[in-house]
Amino acid sequence: MIEILTDSIEVRTRGNTHIVDVTAETGALLEKRGFREGQVLLFVPGSTASLTTVEYEDGLLRDFPEFFDRIAPRGIRYHHEEAWHDGNGHSHVRASLLGPSLTVPFKDGRLLLGTWQQIVLIDFDNRARTRRLVVQITGTRQ
Amino acid sequence: MIEILTDSIEVRTRGNTHIVDVTAETGALLEKRGFREGQVLLFVPGSTASLTTVEYEDGLLRDFPEFFDRIAPRGIRYHHEEAWHDGNGHSHVRASLLGPSLTVPFKDGRLLLGTWQQIVLIDFDNRARTRRLVVQITGTRQ
Amino acid sequence: MIEILTDSIEVRTRGNTHIVDVTAETGALLEKRGFREGQVLLFVPGSTASLTTVEYEDGLLRDFPEFFDRIAPRGIRYHHEEAWHDGNGHSHVRASLLGPSLTVPFKDGRLLLGTWQQIVLIDFDNRARTRRLVVQITGTRQ
Repeated sequence: MIEILTDSIEVRTRGNTHIVDVTAETGALLEKRGFREGQVLLFVPGSTASLTTVEYEDGLLRDFPEFFDRIAPRGIRYHHEEAWHDGNGHSHVRASLLGPSLTVPFKDGRLLLGTWQQIVLIDFDNRARTRRLVVQITGTRQ
Repeated sequence: MIEILTDSIEVRTRGNTHIVDVTAETGALLEKRGFREGQVLLFVPGSTASLTTVEYEDGLLRDFPEFFDRIAPRGIRYHHEEAWHDGNGHSHVRASLLGPSLTVPFKDGRLLLGTWQQIVLIDFDNRARTRRLVVQITGTRQ
Repeated sequence: MIEILTDSIEVRTRGNTHIVDVTAETGALLEKRGFREGQVLLFVPGSTASLTTVEYEDGLLRDFPEFFDRIAPRGIRYHHEEAWHDGNGHSHVRASLLGPSLTVPFKDGRLLLGTWQQIVLIDFDNRARTRRLVVQITGTRQ
């Protein structure tokens, strides 16, 4: 029988395209709740952060932010800032591009990720933030 | 007991990276159908439109299109247009990049969005279109 | 009654942003397993490949890779390569941007895609690879 469970994970970020690995906490929720087969939907409420997967190693933790600095730089003109003056126009553009959700399948209680593939929250806002990710599990229990 | 319901929303767009807020209609479908906990999958059939979330305010409604004008401009050479002559090579590239689907969790009958986070359809085609979004709800009812 | 089934598709790629159409195999799995209404989650384990939809025609099969060559070129400096020397920093950046998962709804046993919209795996790695896609179906059977 398939069940749906809605939980959350709190993440503290430094903002400024800080990349945080949430793989272990996501896997721990699966195990704690006894799910065997199905999918985890991760979703970040808010419009300046995103979810994706990445090989979580020091080089890419610099490369991916530098990529965003090139394609959606801070410091150019954003109409958002003319009204709101919060200096985070680039944060919104980056987050809408990368998207707020990620769905990862699991089987036998294990996330079906590659060995060098981690689930990450990327906080594009221009200041430190505490984020509460929605983690919704759909699947069968043991 | 979990149920799946497949519905749709019709959206008229002006094309040319027009961003349309579909949050209210999505939430209204949830309420009308009496769903309490689960997820809404939005999917746009076609290869020149996408779904994401954005803070739906006037500045960003200009910034996000201008961003796409910079990274995937119209007016440069697209091989697609050599065969099809429909002038929308950039539309395809933008839509494939941003993606055709979005999944949003809900609980207690409410979408778990941030306060300034709206679900949007972005129509990248180079002319006005009428789009029929698939809205598929998976979840429990009251 | 809703069921979840986890299967997979093996795909051989040439790497280097090779785009492979997996629509027919995905549809065949639905039919073989007798599913009627629900959604297919496709997920690629690994951090150098992605899933999206595209109009699968010769022009766009050149345009989309050329787009990535412009926004995340090989040959510029990637910190990833300073440690790993595998020459695929750009592959990781592109894959994390486009994302590892795609969810497509189906009804009456048919994927709800547009006529000119195909499900594709894009392999950004810098060499030929054999990929095993996770295909997880959630839905009702006939």
